[in-house]
Amino acid sequence: MKKFEEKTFHSEVIFNGRIINLKVDSVTLPDGKTSKRELITHPGAVAVIAITADNKILFVEQYRKPLEKSLVEIPAGKLEKGEQPELTALRELEEETGYTTDNMRLLTSFYTSPGFADELIYLYITNDLKKLEQAKGLDEDEFVELMELSLEEAEQLVKTQRIHDAKTAYAVLYLKSEGMI
Amino acid sequence: MKKFEEKTFHSEVIFNGRIINLKVDSVTLPDGKTSKRELITHPGAVAVIAITADNKILFVEQYRKPLEKSLVEIPAGKLEKGEQPELTALRELEEETGYTTDNMRLLTSFYTSPGFADELIYLYITNDLKKLEQAKGLDEDEFVELMELSLEEAEQLVKTQRIHDAKTAYAVLYLKSEGMI
Repeated sequence: MKKFEEKTFHSEVIFNGRIINLKVDSVTLPDGKTSKRELITHPGAVAVIAITADNKILFVEQYRKPLEKSLVEIPAGKLEKGEQPELTALRELEEETGYTTDNMRLLTSFYTSPGFADELIYLYITNDLKKLEQAKGLDEDEFVELMELSLEEAEQLVKTQRIHDAKTAYAVLYLKSEGMI
Repeated sequence: MKKFEEKTFHSEVIFNGRIINLKVDSVTLPDGKTSKRELITHPGAVAVIAITADNKILFVEQYRKPLEKSLVEIPAGKLEKGEQPELTALRELEEETGYTTDNMRLLTSFYTSPGFADELIYLYITNDLKKLEQAKGLDEDEFVELMELSLEEAEQLVKTQRIHDAKTAYAVLYLKSEGMI
């Protein structure tokens, strides 16, 4: 797991933000030469494949400032400091969709952009949803619109790239390949 | 596509790097309040699902400095300025694997981390590989080891998280679901 290791001999902190940090590491390469690596640290995140009793999948549409457009995604959110990913998954499901569950199952995890960032996403699945009696608020800078789509509708949005997010495309492909709905 | 748009009223450049740039935008939210967004711009990238004549999939193992460990991934790389993604895909395939092809097909594209970065990956597929007579060099700061794995072997590496990269997990799931190999 350390093959071709790059040893750091200098690390310059460029930015410590609310969500991401940026540093530039000077490294020694396997052949003894040196290079620089621009590195983002991120707290990690969760995403949730949530399937309703009538076999619809829950999505949220939200504005993504880096892209200057809105995307359709499965419910997701960043880990709070020290928070267990399963609790983050439950919190994001409740806040973004108004549903809850007693049955949140970890499906897998993956690094989203290992070339420049350490973000790891934990992907959960639940098909045992209950409507919350009282809605929970979103974060004050968060605005989302809930959508319930059949697998066929979701596949169509992948084709037309209204679903254009990696974790969400993975989720749709997973549900299709598993024949779960 | 502009639902819940966030209007920028100030943009502060923090860092212009060799690969990524970082800025912090001050934005007006849909409810009139304000917030800040930490935003990475990235040139975009390609990844290639490459299948050999004997139904093996090509992977490369390389050190990923943000994670301080090596990952097993499908061949991939950043777009050079002004480069057409299909040419990037062919270049990365040739450099990282020693194979070439006349038949590079765009499968899909996706945003890897839309919460904080604009990186878009174009995913290509080819099953019409030819060995290059003369190997092309890698970038001078790039060290990779080529692996050829069956679909079953690749699935096993996904399970044990030696394959722990989103685009690569997507590729393995795609090949499994399509029954292509």
